[in-house]
Amino acid sequence: MARLFHVSLSPFCRKVRLSLAEKKIEVELVEERYWERDPDFLRRNPAGKVPVLRLDGHTMSESTAICEYIEETRPEPALMPAKPEARLEVRRLVGWFDDKFHKEVTSKLLYERVNKKMTGQGYPDSKNVKEGARAIKYHLDYMAWLLDHRRWLAGDQMTLADFAAAAHLSALDYISDVDWNRSQVVKDWYAKIKSRPAFRSILADQVPGFRPPPHYADLDF
Amino acid sequence: MARLFHVSLSPFCRKVRLSLAEKKIEVELVEERYWERDPDFLRRNPAGKVPVLRLDGHTMSESTAICEYIEETRPEPALMPAKPEARLEVRRLVGWFDDKFHKEVTSKLLYERVNKKMTGQGYPDSKNVKEGARAIKYHLDYMAWLLDHRRWLAGDQMTLADFAAAAHLSALDYISDVDWNRSQVVKDWYAKIKSRPAFRSILADQVPGFRPPPHYADLDF
Repeated sequence: MARLFHVSLSPFCRKVRLSLAEKKIEVELVEERYWERDPDFLRRNPAGKVPVLRLDGHTMSESTAICEYIEETRPEPALMPAKPEARLEVRRLVGWFDDKFHKEVTSKLLYERVNKKMTGQGYPDSKNVKEGARAIKYHLDYMAWLLDHRRWLAGDQMTLADFAAAAHLSALDYISDVDWNRSQVVKDWYAKIKSRPAFRSILADQVPGFRPPPHYADLDF
Repeated sequence: MARLFHVSLSPFCRKVRLSLAEKKIEVELVEERYWERDPDFLRRNPAGKVPVLRLDGHTMSESTAICEYIEETRPEPALMPAKPEARLEVRRLVGWFDDKFHKEVTSKLLYERVNKKMTGQGYPDSKNVKEGARAIKYHLDYMAWLLDHRRWLAGDQMTLADFAAAAHLSALDYISDVDWNRSQVVKDWYAKIKSRPAFRSILADQVPGFRPPPHYADLDF
């Protein structure tokens, strides 16, 4: 069976979990305290980061590389469109969320509130938290603008771009940092993706010391 | 003709320039002062970052998405291997350089020494510069370890992984931040890639206020 070394609230791990689940690849989840830099773990990934996936006899790291590999080896159901310009748009948005959204929002809210505590680095920096809370509004508005024109973020089909976005937003939703009342189209999009069977394992996550709000796992939030 | 909005020393722009040049796609380079957030530029890329490429009637952003698009639409000469596990390794290393190396090295040396001055953000933070100077040694050693086993970084063929690495290292070399004496295999690898015709435009770059060391454009460095 595939084995994923992960951290529950990591958006990069969640993106991979969603891809695996959508493709119906069973996986054993192993919580990895990557910040303790265990030598066995560093042998698996010298970058010292999660996710790390054991699949097909290979040890894989870098979430985007992993998702592309899964897509190439298990093309059904497709999480990438066929046309190059549509694939470009999917990858642009994966980059948007994993780079820009991560830097401006996830690292300022989730990392301040959760990762710092988990890794013993102290208290949240309120300046960062404020900046993250301001930036997420702009990102939700950008998503709303996209979803005004499209059924899914990158076009008319659900893709890795939706999983990348949902991975970040679901982790932030766990700590009540998403204002779902800001945009009805974004809320509708999240309701659609949240109700997929692939999302179940993510909604069942429990992080010791952090209790999710009641709406977190509620499909009628 | 294709048009690339770029900044000379940006490793992300350089990676795209190398891909375009290797595929013999002629491109007009337009210096973009992205930090001034010109509305025309933000319309092209709401992320407000370079590179932005006009090609095939599309406006493209996110360097990794762009390079994958170029590879899919102009497969020759190939910058990606055919097998999924070999492609995984290429993408893992592109991620390594564009994420980890960028965070630990490029942002601490190039951004402190050049971008801050260029964008009027003041003087380099010496703590960052010291950290970057320490981290690059570890990365050069990792590259040496890879190149002890392989002709190119991701295997026996030159790929996007080599271009990602060379894009970062060439920008750092412009400000004399690479110790080429640390590893002979890394120096040999860089000499090989530097002597490719695709590298010429990068070696001809001149950034006002920053003069490259004499060895920068020298193929026998």
